[in-house]
Amino acid sequence: MLGDSVKQKLREIVGSQWFKDDKESLITHSYDSTPMLQSLPDGVIYPENTAQVSAILKLLNEHRIPVVSRGSGTNLCGGTVPVEGGIVMVMHRMNRILEVDLDNLTATVQPGLNTKQFSTHVEGLGLFYPPDPGSMAISTIGGNIAECSGGLRGLKYGTTKDYVIGLEAVLANGEIIRTGGKLMKDVAGYDLTKLLVGSEGTLAVVTEAILKLIPPPKTKKTMLAMYKDLYGAARTVSKIIENRIIPATLEFLDNPTIRVVDDFAKLGLPLDMDAILLIEQDGDSETVERDIARIAEICQSENAERVTIATDEAEALKLMTARRSAFTALARLRPTTILEDATVPRSKIAEMVLAINEIAARHNVTICTFGHAGDGNLHPTATTDARDKEEIHRVEEAFEEIFEAAIRLGGTITGEHGVGLVKAPYLEWKVGSAGIEVMRSIKMAFDPNNILNPGKMFAKSTRKRVVLGHA
Amino acid sequence: MLGDSVKQKLREIVGSQWFKDDKESLITHSYDSTPMLQSLPDGVIYPENTAQVSAILKLLNEHRIPVVSRGSGTNLCGGTVPVEGGIVMVMHRMNRILEVDLDNLTATVQPGLNTKQFSTHVEGLGLFYPPDPGSMAISTIGGNIAECSGGLRGLKYGTTKDYVIGLEAVLANGEIIRTGGKLMKDVAGYDLTKLLVGSEGTLAVVTEAILKLIPPPKTKKTMLAMYKDLYGAARTVSKIIENRIIPATLEFLDNPTIRVVDDFAKLGLPLDMDAILLIEQDGDSETVERDIARIAEICQSENAERVTIATDEAEALKLMTARRSAFTALARLRPTTILEDATVPRSKIAEMVLAINEIAARHNVTICTFGHAGDGNLHPTATTDARDKEEIHRVEEAFEEIFEAAIRLGGTITGEHGVGLVKAPYLEWKVGSAGIEVMRSIKMAFDPNNILNPGKMFAKSTRKRVVLGHA
Repeated sequence: MLGDSVKQKLREIVGSQWFKDDKESLITHSYDSTPMLQSLPDGVIYPENTAQVSAILKLLNEHRIPVVSRGSGTNLCGGTVPVEGGIVMVMHRMNRILEVDLDNLTATVQPGLNTKQFSTHVEGLGLFYPPDPGSMAISTIGGNIAECSGGLRGLKYGTTKDYVIGLEAVLANGEIIRTGGKLMKDVAGYDLTKLLVGSEGTLAVVTEAILKLIPPPKTKKTMLAMYKDLYGAARTVSKIIENRIIPATLEFLDNPTIRVVDDFAKLGLPLDMDAILLIEQDGDSETVERDIARIAEICQSENAERVTIATDEAEALKLMTARRSAFTALARLRPTTILEDATVPRSKIAEMVLAINEIAARHNVTICTFGHAGDGNLHPTATTDARDKEEIHRVEEAFEEIFEAAIRLGGTITGEHGVGLVKAPYLEWKVGSAGIEVMRSIKMAFDPNNILNPGKMFAKSTRKRVVLGHA
Repeated sequence: MLGDSVKQKLREIVGSQWFKDDKESLITHSYDSTPMLQSLPDGVIYPENTAQVSAILKLLNEHRIPVVSRGSGTNLCGGTVPVEGGIVMVMHRMNRILEVDLDNLTATVQPGLNTKQFSTHVEGLGLFYPPDPGSMAISTIGGNIAECSGGLRGLKYGTTKDYVIGLEAVLANGEIIRTGGKLMKDVAGYDLTKLLVGSEGTLAVVTEAILKLIPPPKTKKTMLAMYKDLYGAARTVSKIIENRIIPATLEFLDNPTIRVVDDFAKLGLPLDMDAILLIEQDGDSETVERDIARIAEICQSENAERVTIATDEAEALKLMTARRSAFTALARLRPTTILEDATVPRSKIAEMVLAINEIAARHNVTICTFGHAGDGNLHPTATTDARDKEEIHRVEEAFEEIFEAAIRLGGTITGEHGVGLVKAPYLEWKVGSAGIEVMRSIKMAFDPNNILNPGKMFAKSTRKRVVLGHA
């Protein structure tokens, strides 16, 4: 609980209107986009600048009060649920683009900046910031940095980590560090920049970021390929890469997802297909034309039933809608949608999808799978109902087996959504007990009093690994 | 000192022929490529596999004996000099390519593998591993990982860090961890992979690496642009980037370097030029043609005296020789060559070169500057004589001012060579005292007994910052 004197000091730091502890504020900051998780904080604070963040952390560290920094809370791993109470620190007031440096192709921004707004701004300057998480219309750059967000362009362009080259961050004790800079190369000491990206608010609070921008591709082209045979679609993915083509986007939808999406968006998709690949290439026009033509040949050679290449931007947008609307469409089906994030080496996509389907059938749950096939990053998504405890239990058992299958295939428990609360019991499956120990010791080094987003990433106990009957 | 019983146990681990403590072995492992640094180890060991590395570290950790793991010792920061004695662990026996996975475009390799041999091998398979440090004919992948080596292709393709996606590493206590995998995306816990890359053997010993490979560019084109005005060359660098062109290579040589290189390689370079830019673009032929033509226009518009575009591979190789032979040519001039590694935002290249020249003149030392202009990564290189203590003192004073100038311009003390012993007294200038504290605590978390490459990265005391008279 938060004593009155600490509350008073917090009000003094930010101004009384920027600290809230009324019931509505506490309830609205007790959850994020992850289903079935809620925990009330004791207060909500909105800092305006780095000095305030520093003063807040110094105070909370002295009093051992937990603090969860957050943006828009679009994460899907329970990453910003204040499970141990304390303070939720909302970064939305620190939302400015401080500079776009056209000589160095960098932008310096505050963490509360909206991703889409930033992306659009730099596009207006003739530049390109590739990370495009599904939540980008709502998410913040700070949230993207905390989770190392990916997106549909990850295959060719990488994820948030690849674009963060400098940070200002406040440590648990209130000290301010600066890492990297407007520098394409810097090996002065350990790479704290990359360590902080994806650290889910457990090591420091990011207050400023220097982002790398790149020249935008001159043109792009979009296509869909539809398959009656899942393996044909999976082989196409491998064969494109084997042919030394790295498309900007290479997405997959399975049959249940196709049906739901078509019902939602009325795209006239054929409902008897086992899989659809959405493929986009960008770059110079000659390259794009040649790559798309070669990809179409590969699709045909793997017995695609139908290959559609968009002839204009409107049609490309329509094809892209099939993929972009998957989550929204699935969310309409039942009260609770659980979107997961298993990732495997891309050569294992077909095996992974088959494993998911087998597991879902065995547990009698509905799981639709779509995702970034080119990255091996799949989003098996359960449509269920949180009120049905028995069904939820089956869903959880199924996901546990899905994580186990991903690990068995050389994959990981999360490709882009983060560990947070939801994956913490499974982290050891991926990194081993020695890996957990190293990570815990890093956490201790940064935050000895464990005030920064406590309860995340490290679970009190690790789940026992499932031994799958069919393996 | 190393007791006989520890020596005996080390011999038992690796076989007696793979542990050496004769004078010749100790002397030949007492230095690396960094001038003027030497310190004798107490023994040299050559492990054959991960289990041996684990057993060696467990033993040395129990006895608190320092261990410096190394490849070919081509680093320039004193990174592999055993300053506190103990064991030098040479990784050359672990030099195999374990797998090239054509489906996933990854290679799994051991740390002692030669960089050039690896690069050539994957090229033979129609793939591309971009990092190309100047020492690649001799260096090892493990050494490149320890130092996060860069090279001439860093501008477009990034450095070693961008290609390491998984590691097996042995901790100081002998425990083995595995990070990442054949995965383009993995956010399961802190990014230990990127933390270990560039950690200079101070956190763990890498025993296996999974490297990302990419499709090779279809073609490339090389050109030289020569300037009587340094600022014209620098403006060209900025203007190329501003024009949204990212060349594969964008290198710079100043007048003193041009003279030395021409004398060495007899290339017929004009000796009255203030600066030469070596520019290479790769990719699809249409793109390359268009970019090179546009770059040539930009060079002309910035008053290049001469622009030469190679018409065939032989000519390209000749132009590239001007840059590739810079270090060798400079090394012939005087007994001691000190190659430094200051990096600034690329918009500050001209200012940095002018600062270097002013500082060199003021201290009456010869400093030639060349390097990766597109990255802002310059290599000011002093030709001197280690036996002349008074001159060496002036050289050291000059470099100290050069680091200070780099920091003042928003740069860093090292772009690609690492901190090691040489830069340790300056690390705080870049990362601040809070940054040093965080890095020290990470070091403690990994290696509480400080046996892994002790004396590197963290200095006993930080140098006072110079206040430059002309600043």
